[in-house]
Amino acid sequence: MNHNAILPENPDKLHEECGVFGIIKALAPGEPAGSDPSFSRDPAFDTYNALYALQHRGQESCGIATCSPNGILSLRKGKGLVPEVFASRDLQKMAGATAAIGHVRHANDLMDANPNNAQPIVAHHASGSIALCYNGKLVNSAALKTEMESRGAIFQTTNDAEIITNLIVREHLRTNTLEDAVLNAMEYMIGAFSIVMMDREKLIAARDPNGIRPLCVGKVGDCYVFSSESCAIQSLGGTLIRDIAPGEVAVVDRGELKSYPCAVRHAKSALCMFELIYFARQDSVIDGAPVGVVREEAGRCLARFAKTEADLVVGVPDSGVVAAMGYAKESGIPYGMGLMKNRYIQRTFIQSRKIQRKKSIRIKLNAMSAVVKGKRIILVDDSIVRGGTMARIVQLLRDAGATEVHVKITAPPFVHACYYGTAIPNERHLAAYGRTEEEVCQLICADSLQYMPLGGLEHLSKKLNLRYCDACFSGNYVLPIPKLRSEPLYSVTYPEEETET
Amino acid sequence: MNHNAILPENPDKLHEECGVFGIIKALAPGEPAGSDPSFSRDPAFDTYNALYALQHRGQESCGIATCSPNGILSLRKGKGLVPEVFASRDLQKMAGATAAIGHVRHANDLMDANPNNAQPIVAHHASGSIALCYNGKLVNSAALKTEMESRGAIFQTTNDAEIITNLIVREHLRTNTLEDAVLNAMEYMIGAFSIVMMDREKLIAARDPNGIRPLCVGKVGDCYVFSSESCAIQSLGGTLIRDIAPGEVAVVDRGELKSYPCAVRHAKSALCMFELIYFARQDSVIDGAPVGVVREEAGRCLARFAKTEADLVVGVPDSGVVAAMGYAKESGIPYGMGLMKNRYIQRTFIQSRKIQRKKSIRIKLNAMSAVVKGKRIILVDDSIVRGGTMARIVQLLRDAGATEVHVKITAPPFVHACYYGTAIPNERHLAAYGRTEEEVCQLICADSLQYMPLGGLEHLSKKLNLRYCDACFSGNYVLPIPKLRSEPLYSVTYPEEETET
Amino acid sequence: MNHNAILPENPDKLHEECGVFGIIKALAPGEPAGSDPSFSRDPAFDTYNALYALQHRGQESCGIATCSPNGILSLRKGKGLVPEVFASRDLQKMAGATAAIGHVRHANDLMDANPNNAQPIVAHHASGSIALCYNGKLVNSAALKTEMESRGAIFQTTNDAEIITNLIVREHLRTNTLEDAVLNAMEYMIGAFSIVMMDREKLIAARDPNGIRPLCVGKVGDCYVFSSESCAIQSLGGTLIRDIAPGEVAVVDRGELKSYPCAVRHAKSALCMFELIYFARQDSVIDGAPVGVVREEAGRCLARFAKTEADLVVGVPDSGVVAAMGYAKESGIPYGMGLMKNRYIQRTFIQSRKIQRKKSIRIKLNAMSAVVKGKRIILVDDSIVRGGTMARIVQLLRDAGATEVHVKITAPPFVHACYYGTAIPNERHLAAYGRTEEEVCQLICADSLQYMPLGGLEHLSKKLNLRYCDACFSGNYVLPIPKLRSEPLYSVTYPEEETET
Amino acid sequence: MNHNAILPENPDKLHEECGVFGIIKALAPGEPAGSDPSFSRDPAFDTYNALYALQHRGQESCGIATCSPNGILSLRKGKGLVPEVFASRDLQKMAGATAAIGHVRHANDLMDANPNNAQPIVAHHASGSIALCYNGKLVNSAALKTEMESRGAIFQTTNDAEIITNLIVREHLRTNTLEDAVLNAMEYMIGAFSIVMMDREKLIAARDPNGIRPLCVGKVGDCYVFSSESCAIQSLGGTLIRDIAPGEVAVVDRGELKSYPCAVRHAKSALCMFELIYFARQDSVIDGAPVGVVREEAGRCLARFAKTEADLVVGVPDSGVVAAMGYAKESGIPYGMGLMKNRYIQRTFIQSRKIQRKKSIRIKLNAMSAVVKGKRIILVDDSIVRGGTMARIVQLLRDAGATEVHVKITAPPFVHACYYGTAIPNERHLAAYGRTEEEVCQLICADSLQYMPLGGLEHLSKKLNLRYCDACFSGNYVLPIPKLRSEPLYSVTYPEEETET
Repeated sequence: MNHNAILPENPDKLHEECGVFGIIKALAPGEPAGSDPSFSRDPAFDTYNALYALQHRGQESCGIATCSPNGILSLRKGKGLVPEVFASRDLQKMAGATAAIGHVRHANDLMDANPNNAQPIVAHHASGSIALCYNGKLVNSAALKTEMESRGAIFQTTNDAEIITNLIVREHLRTNTLEDAVLNAMEYMIGAFSIVMMDREKLIAARDPNGIRPLCVGKVGDCYVFSSESCAIQSLGGTLIRDIAPGEVAVVDRGELKSYPCAVRHAKSALCMFELIYFARQDSVIDGAPVGVVREEAGRCLARFAKTEADLVVGVPDSGVVAAMGYAKESGIPYGMGLMKNRYIQRTFIQSRKIQRKKSIRIKLNAMSAVVKGKRIILVDDSIVRGGTMARIVQLLRDAGATEVHVKITAPPFVHACYYGTAIPNERHLAAYGRTEEEVCQLICADSLQYMPLGGLEHLSKKLNLRYCDACFSGNYVLPIPKLRSEPLYSVTYPEEETET
Repeated sequence: MNHNAILPENPDKLHEECGVFGIIKALAPGEPAGSDPSFSRDPAFDTYNALYALQHRGQESCGIATCSPNGILSLRKGKGLVPEVFASRDLQKMAGATAAIGHVRHANDLMDANPNNAQPIVAHHASGSIALCYNGKLVNSAALKTEMESRGAIFQTTNDAEIITNLIVREHLRTNTLEDAVLNAMEYMIGAFSIVMMDREKLIAARDPNGIRPLCVGKVGDCYVFSSESCAIQSLGGTLIRDIAPGEVAVVDRGELKSYPCAVRHAKSALCMFELIYFARQDSVIDGAPVGVVREEAGRCLARFAKTEADLVVGVPDSGVVAAMGYAKESGIPYGMGLMKNRYIQRTFIQSRKIQRKKSIRIKLNAMSAVVKGKRIILVDDSIVRGGTMARIVQLLRDAGATEVHVKITAPPFVHACYYGTAIPNERHLAAYGRTEEEVCQLICADSLQYMPLGGLEHLSKKLNLRYCDACFSGNYVLPIPKLRSEPLYSVTYPEEETET
Repeated sequence: MNHNAILPENPDKLHEECGVFGIIKALAPGEPAGSDPSFSRDPAFDTYNALYALQHRGQESCGIATCSPNGILSLRKGKGLVPEVFASRDLQKMAGATAAIGHVRHANDLMDANPNNAQPIVAHHASGSIALCYNGKLVNSAALKTEMESRGAIFQTTNDAEIITNLIVREHLRTNTLEDAVLNAMEYMIGAFSIVMMDREKLIAARDPNGIRPLCVGKVGDCYVFSSESCAIQSLGGTLIRDIAPGEVAVVDRGELKSYPCAVRHAKSALCMFELIYFARQDSVIDGAPVGVVREEAGRCLARFAKTEADLVVGVPDSGVVAAMGYAKESGIPYGMGLMKNRYIQRTFIQSRKIQRKKSIRIKLNAMSAVVKGKRIILVDDSIVRGGTMARIVQLLRDAGATEVHVKITAPPFVHACYYGTAIPNERHLAAYGRTEEEVCQLICADSLQYMPLGGLEHLSKKLNLRYCDACFSGNYVLPIPKLRSEPLYSVTYPEEETET
Repeated sequence: MNHNAILPENPDKLHEECGVFGIIKALAPGEPAGSDPSFSRDPAFDTYNALYALQHRGQESCGIATCSPNGILSLRKGKGLVPEVFASRDLQKMAGATAAIGHVRHANDLMDANPNNAQPIVAHHASGSIALCYNGKLVNSAALKTEMESRGAIFQTTNDAEIITNLIVREHLRTNTLEDAVLNAMEYMIGAFSIVMMDREKLIAARDPNGIRPLCVGKVGDCYVFSSESCAIQSLGGTLIRDIAPGEVAVVDRGELKSYPCAVRHAKSALCMFELIYFARQDSVIDGAPVGVVREEAGRCLARFAKTEADLVVGVPDSGVVAAMGYAKESGIPYGMGLMKNRYIQRTFIQSRKIQRKKSIRIKLNAMSAVVKGKRIILVDDSIVRGGTMARIVQLLRDAGATEVHVKITAPPFVHACYYGTAIPNERHLAAYGRTEEEVCQLICADSLQYMPLGGLEHLSKKLNLRYCDACFSGNYVLPIPKLRSEPLYSVTYPEEETET
């Protein structure tokens, strides 16, 4: 496979780490798993399509584990987008599974850039085999690892999923059921995690007590599914049942969905605000909130908080467009498609350094003169990370004839690191770090700049009846901050990652 | 390279055949070609980026030919998207060229599915070498081929570019300059063609006397460029100078742009209407018409021609969105993002037939319940080809809770074959073929259906001062229809096309 | 580019499982590891070349682990031949290592056909990281695994290397040095194993107490090396120091080679006889015996044991040729190159079943009429597994005009399974299983058949002062036979294995 | 998966350019071509296997053209070894052909290193299509090309096959049959050529009037075949009928083999001596001479011409081995396998320059101490090109303990360029150029050196009743030397050649 230096998802954007999915046939009680010959859906193919719908949550690697009718777990994973890792014949080989789980991943550390770190992980233990994948980040992973190593455990990846698997397996030695092992293990795990796992009989989902990362359950035909986002369920033609509650362990066993609360109490519900503002797909519904509606409302919010004279509202594709439409509706200023994105953008390669970065943005975005010429523009986007991209977009609009460019950001300025699974560059590189709003405005050469105030988020979340984590804006962390992880001690590479130069 | 059955650009859409591009350093008169050591732009890399901007005009294969400072022409071409065929090191090898031409291609016949048919073509002839590529379709290619074969010519592709090259080379035997050879050859060529070619000294562009396919000239830094669409020039940060006129041969020789009219007179200007309605990128300007504005105006047109009661206007992404916004503005009905497209769509593979096609559309598009539920929808798109896709989108909206779906199409129903370079399925498969508007409406299960009337196009084009070809709607061909091409007599395949299964 | 079904190394031959190699710079005592800037040899590149010399011991997958000057272990492994898994740039990335170990592998079970099972294995444990690879087979692996699982261990491969690593890591918790951990672990390991491993400071080799698989130590420039066979040392221009003794643990630490005997006593030395007869490269010296000389002597032996009237001695390439020459010299019958092997044989693909297998041998071997016509042939080879290949070679010679074909085999008939690392087909498929020598002769349609008598082996080994394992001929196992391994419970695949169809 | 810089066939060896093959079903007269449903052989698969047997004649690229029952010619070609270019599914697609031709190629110029230059060539002309491939080199290709260009022809490759095709097509305009066109064309072609071609009905072979390159005809089942060497016929289980005579055009038309002499008279028969000495496979029979026997005889010849005291005769694998055995038999000095070749040699990559070349030979060849230690060695090989490889082999033997090394070469020293298809390095690089035998002996550090005297060749050929070309030894060219070819004016690359770095 020749990836030839694919243009990374905008390096000037935040990154979600992962998306998870799981599906199991809902057998009638008493019916042995995998016995139905008229199996109408194919879990592996459904997982493929679901991962494809979750692709925005991770483009670095992906994997699918399946459970065959006779209870054997198989795994295929690798680097690349879902359709690059799975060819038609791979799915044919996986056909006929009774259950499957899948994962898409964005490495949050450079040291994680090896395919062995791809998920799911499949492990054989004393009483069988399990496959597991998760989205999130443990705060105490180093401590857990050290503790397990001191009892003789070895680690072959630098991945929290391996730690979680070890933990659950250890607990399983003294519990009767896998779900009990998961419930026990959750007492040791501190951080953000949305886990989907299976053994030869059950599909299990678990969400951390704070509910930092999303996780929901739905039904597709006669199958139960767990998914990071509801859009994956919809893409299969299924229906969302509900969100997995913070601290809940949900189990599908012989066709029945059961639910257990974990023993951790008094945890504050704290959905990552960036899931709603930027990460999640607009057509997902998370913890009851339709993402597109939240974003439109965020745009409206901005328009209400301050009034700016302008002729046209323009959204930065793709994620800023709905917010811009909300702004337009609230403000009465017309919306216009002033920026056009090359729809083949995922495949071009990294600009040579010789080409000035200022020019490189043109390959991805084009400002439409016919639309913006002579106009005062309200430019709406979801975030400013380092500031470089926004500065180039502002310039693009000016070059196309815009007379003024007023930038509106639907999130507050973020200045704190995230320890729960969002990859934020080092604080020093953040545009808002150590700069006033005015200084950021100068940095991006805009005529004015307006961030969403923290109060705006509060207002928004009240309306949606939502409790959220805003640590990256406010510094108020819902969980303790981990100690620094030590240096990586080994790395693994497989050939496929090397077809690139 | 693993192409594993990439999802074709919607098989239920029309296809443009090709995009062309050329660039040459504009040397001062008297300065020898290729002598400037401080060559600030790299023609090969610029061509790569330009082809990437023209990728929507052809995804099957692509190629770049370069001219080295010492006048040697090199060629690299293959199957796949631009970044799949060209890796970073390929462009490094091509660095330092004084000129380059490039091509993206969508095969219009199945028999053309071989990489040898990729363009450009590079040929060695009596007085040197030329590289040539074109967009369009000759009506009299079979006759020209037969004539040349009767004089001993052999053909190694099934490509009109090889015929055109032979013709120009033949004429060059009795002309002094390459441009004279092109002018002579144009007297024999009947059909649609936008040619970009070069030899070791000159870059030449030629557009057919009817101007059926677009072609324009611009300047990027110290280079002249020719391009199918202006968006490619803009993506390089350059400026559009003007369109190449129908029947014009434009030559860049030693830094000077010269223009010659071909001898064909009385040709009716006839830009393919589908370039404006669907093929071209929204941010291009073609024959003076900004494509996005034309589409918005087409949406407005539809709103003016008939009034439909509804609650929300929804556009089919990507191409129907601007028209839908125009419709919304004209009608006063609010616009809403009711359909959401998976932005990774280019890479998934073809649905297995086992999965009902009705479900497959969900992988690509999702209707947003929160937006469309309980609403009467105006659904705007640019065309209906076979009808299947539109029927599935209508159903998607209904499933998401839309109470009514009224379909508005910005083009008239098309029922006639195109012989000038647009790949239209066999007439029998066209939704509008042999069906009334009402019958098509039933076919797609919409509550109502409105096509753009032919008069609407006329109105539109008057406003834009544009003469166009509407043969696929009206059957009024500007040029004679070719006799059927005979069976293919050979085919060629190269290994790379086989990495797929 | 696809490899599509490479012709397996003759499926009618026995297979060795693995080859191991390790190299470490021999630093002066006191000198910190990795500090020498003028590092004259590159361990990664040397390992690449050594694996290439050991390629005959395993063609399915291979891997190299390196230790960087700052003590970080890196791993690269994958499916395919050494030059297929490692490209020039991979070795460039690995340049500058202070030590490296490498492995080539032939899967001995179908369930092992996944790349995750490739070796080396790199693991992080309580007090650092280790990289380990081995050749052989543990008899008690299932029991060891169960015991470790009962204490919470998880297994991600179906590979004994992971079990051995766990065992050593467990012992390391209560030992001061890594070599002590290895010595302790050896008390639990029953079976054949030649281990090469390293941590950030030391390179360690260990050979099972019976010495079933070969392992030797040598010096290449200023580096110490361990290798399955001496040919790898020679290919680097180095010198063989000696064989690692059965039960020995050899350690290279800060430039010094130390040796420790393991605690297991009274183990019978028992080198696998097939290493000498067939597996090892002819230019290796194993436990003091030059392989080529052993084979020539085996041929001479056969000639002494029985006299056959004939005109020409022909060897089956490649492994039967030296033995045939020995036979020729002893018998006085001239040697002739009557069989010719296609030297590109490794790369053709599996014959379609439609083609009769009888014909397929011609693609690989050709009998030279000019040499064998009208002659009575002595045909010498090392073994008969199922008999099919030998039958076809006999026929090939007859078709080319040989009047008689007398088959001489340098090994006794083997009829017992091997549990120490040689992949022998199920007993039922063995030509000699349940057949007399005469019946096998009929099976292969030879005029006569002579196996090496068990006494011949004894005679041979006495001359070489060698103790060997002949369990596959005699049924006298030096170690207990394992219980059957249970069904595989999971499998893992990575994309690269899918370049094939 | 990447092949990254495969070790070229020894760069210090001469190279043959090409191998050709063709097969057609021998239909009964009157039976329409391709009508037999019970088609027992598959021409495409047979051609695949035949090319595999001819792989030694060219490893750079290969191709197969097939003729379908309805007369459509298809072509597949690419860079790489036969099993790399053709996967199982490619042959499945080609199944059912009525005829096929195939080609393996070694580029003789660097400028030919593009895949478009691969053969066969398939061309469409006035009265149908033809597929053609050839082995050899035209002396007057530049003149022929210029003449055709002056009449309007264009050339898309830098390949003589395209010139020959044009020539034949031109002649076909004024002849009734394809074979007449070939016969006419041969009057214009000066040089070495063995052509195999087909149209929808006939398979045609043509050999140049001097018979410089081999070509023979055989029968395989109900099919006629043409092949560069008889070994390909044998590998299919067929029988050699006879050699195609110098100047003969052989045609298989509706099951009948017909033969026509070309009009060129008085041409001296002149088979390239290197075909027998080195290029051809040992099991082929060329112009009546069994290649292996010729080589053994050459070894005997050397032993008769001069007597050298020694203890052991060693051949350089693979090609020097038979000659060494001949030498051993004639001289009475025993033969020993003193050199061992790594049988995976085709796949390793080019040594980095940092590693001294002196060491690199060890990767490919190993001298067996146990065999050569303390011995005086006679080392037999077929040729010395630059001398470097031979010097390293001599050193290898000395390092392994040989006390003397006496080099015997079965060809005379060659000092003249070949214009008929053998790629010989520039004269200045030839070991024998400007050096006496003694000086060459010093160059390779041997104790003595003996070349085959020209008289030896004469003696050998008389015995075989063979007329041969010895221009590279004697400078006596059978045909005029061409003028220098001008600079290449263009180059073409396809993606597959880029999987390498």
